[in-house]
Amino acid sequence: MTRIAICAPATPIKRKLAQRVTALAAEGYPQLELSFHEQCFVSEGHFAGSDAIRLAALLECANDPGFDAVWFAKGGYGSNRIARAALAGIDEHAARKSYLGYSDCGTLLGALYRAGIGQPAHAPMPVDLKREGGEAAVRRALDWLAGDPSGKEESVGGEPVVAFNLMTLAMLVGTEFMPPLAGHVVMIEEVAEHLYAVDRMMFHVTQHLHGIAGIRLGEVSKVPENDRPFGADAVEIVQDWCARSGIPYLGRAQIGHSADNRIVPFGLVEPAGAA
Amino acid sequence: MTRIAICAPATPIKRKLAQRVTALAAEGYPQLELSFHEQCFVSEGHFAGSDAIRLAALLECANDPGFDAVWFAKGGYGSNRIARAALAGIDEHAARKSYLGYSDCGTLLGALYRAGIGQPAHAPMPVDLKREGGEAAVRRALDWLAGDPSGKEESVGGEPVVAFNLMTLAMLVGTEFMPPLAGHVVMIEEVAEHLYAVDRMMFHVTQHLHGIAGIRLGEVSKVPENDRPFGADAVEIVQDWCARSGIPYLGRAQIGHSADNRIVPFGLVEPAGAA
Repeated sequence: MTRIAICAPATPIKRKLAQRVTALAAEGYPQLELSFHEQCFVSEGHFAGSDAIRLAALLECANDPGFDAVWFAKGGYGSNRIARAALAGIDEHAARKSYLGYSDCGTLLGALYRAGIGQPAHAPMPVDLKREGGEAAVRRALDWLAGDPSGKEESVGGEPVVAFNLMTLAMLVGTEFMPPLAGHVVMIEEVAEHLYAVDRMMFHVTQHLHGIAGIRLGEVSKVPENDRPFGADAVEIVQDWCARSGIPYLGRAQIGHSADNRIVPFGLVEPAGAA
Repeated sequence: MTRIAICAPATPIKRKLAQRVTALAAEGYPQLELSFHEQCFVSEGHFAGSDAIRLAALLECANDPGFDAVWFAKGGYGSNRIARAALAGIDEHAARKSYLGYSDCGTLLGALYRAGIGQPAHAPMPVDLKREGGEAAVRRALDWLAGDPSGKEESVGGEPVVAFNLMTLAMLVGTEFMPPLAGHVVMIEEVAEHLYAVDRMMFHVTQHLHGIAGIRLGEVSKVPENDRPFGADAVEIVQDWCARSGIPYLGRAQIGHSADNRIVPFGLVEPAGAA
C-alpha cells in the first residue's frame, strides 16, 4: 500500500473535489490510499489558512512516517511564504517521500530539491480534476504514485531536469530556495500572463540561469488580449532570450496548466520502468 | 539654455502629446529647450520601434554633446531589451547628463546608476500630461530640469536613495544591470497588480536587497479586484516582508503612477537648493 498525504500550501480546494478524487483513486488504484488533510478546505483571505496553519499541515504530512508521498492539492499563491519554516521543520521521515505538484507549489519543489529532500516532481494536482479532461491528468499523477512512469514528459531522461511555472521560477531565482541548476534542462510553462510579461520574465530568468543545459518551453496558455499585438509569439520570445543569453533552446515540452500536463521528476531520473 | 533630448526606450507616445508638452515648456520655461526624437512616435508591435531603432535614438540623445539631459517619454515595457547595448554604446558625453523617467524605464536608470553614468532620477515623464492633474507632474519634471529642486520627494536627503516600480525592480534584481544598493533607501511603487502579486514580488526583492538602509512604500494604485480579498493591504504586505527579511520599513514615499509622483535623484543627493 502506498499512502499519500494531501495538503494545500497555497490556496484551498472544496471538500467535494477531494471526495471525487478519493473516489477516482478508490475505483482504479487499490494499492493507493489518499488522505486529504483537513487544512485543504480551510479558507483565510487569499490562502488555505494562515501561514501557521498551512505550515503545520505540510509538516504533519511530510514528517509522518506513515505516508510515502505528499501531494499538493492546488497552487494559486502562497507556498513561498512557508518555505523557510518548512525546510527548518521537516525531519528524516520527510526525506523518504515523493512531493508532487506544480504552479505556485514549484517554490516548495525547488526548495526541497535544493535541500536534497525526497523526490520532488512537477505533476498534476487534485485541483486539475476540474479541468476539461482533468480526470486523465489526475490519473496520470495517480499512475505515477502507483509506480507507473508512463506519464513522464517524454523528453525526460539522460540529463537532470526541472520544470517550473515561469512566474514561480522568476520569483524563485536568486533566493535562498533556488536550487543550483547547472547542467539541467529547465522546462517552463505559463498561464494567464501577457506576452510582454513573458518577455520580461525571460529577461529576468535567463540572467539567473547561467550554465544550464537548455530551456524547453511548455504551454503558454490563456494569454490575455493586450491593447496591441506583442509582435512575437511565445516560442519566438523564448528563442530570442535563449539566443541573447547563450542558453540552448531545446524545443517544446508537454507541461502546462492543462489536462495534458505531464510529469517531470526533478533531477537525474533513471530509465523509464525503474521509477 | 538647458537642452533636453526626449526618446522612448519602451513604448511610443503620440505626436500631439509631444506638441502639448513642448507648448507647456515654451510658455513657462524659457531656459529649457525640448527636443522630441522622431523615434518617440514610431510604433512596431508592442514597442516604440524595434530594439535597433529604440537603441539608436537613445544613443543619439545620450551621446550628443548638445544635450544636457535625456528625458524618457513613456514606460510600458521594453527598456531592458536595449540596456546592454546602450551601456556598450554610450560615450563620454553621456556621463555629463541627467536621465529622467520611471516605471519600465527604471531598468535604464538602474543600469546607468550601476555604471556610474550621469545622474539618473525617478521623475514624471511627458506621458504623464495625460493624467488628471498631469500638467503639475510634467511641470515638476520641467522645474527640476530648470534647476528648481522643489519637486523632490520630501524624505530624500542624508542617505543614498533609489526609486523603482516594484515589478521593474523585481525583474532587475540579480541581473547584470542591478546596482549595488547597500546603505540605500529603496522606494517602491506599483500599479495595476493584484495584492498577491505584490506579496510575491516583495518575497522576491527582499531576498535580493540585503544590506539596504530600508524600504519606503509609494502608491500602490489600480489594484485589480480578485475573486477574494487578499487579507492584508499593501502597507501590511511590505511591513511583513521587511520584518521577515530584517529590512527596516521606513514609511511611505510620495511616488507612484499618478500626478503626485515626485522626483528621486538616485544616489546621495546634496541638500535642497544645491541640485
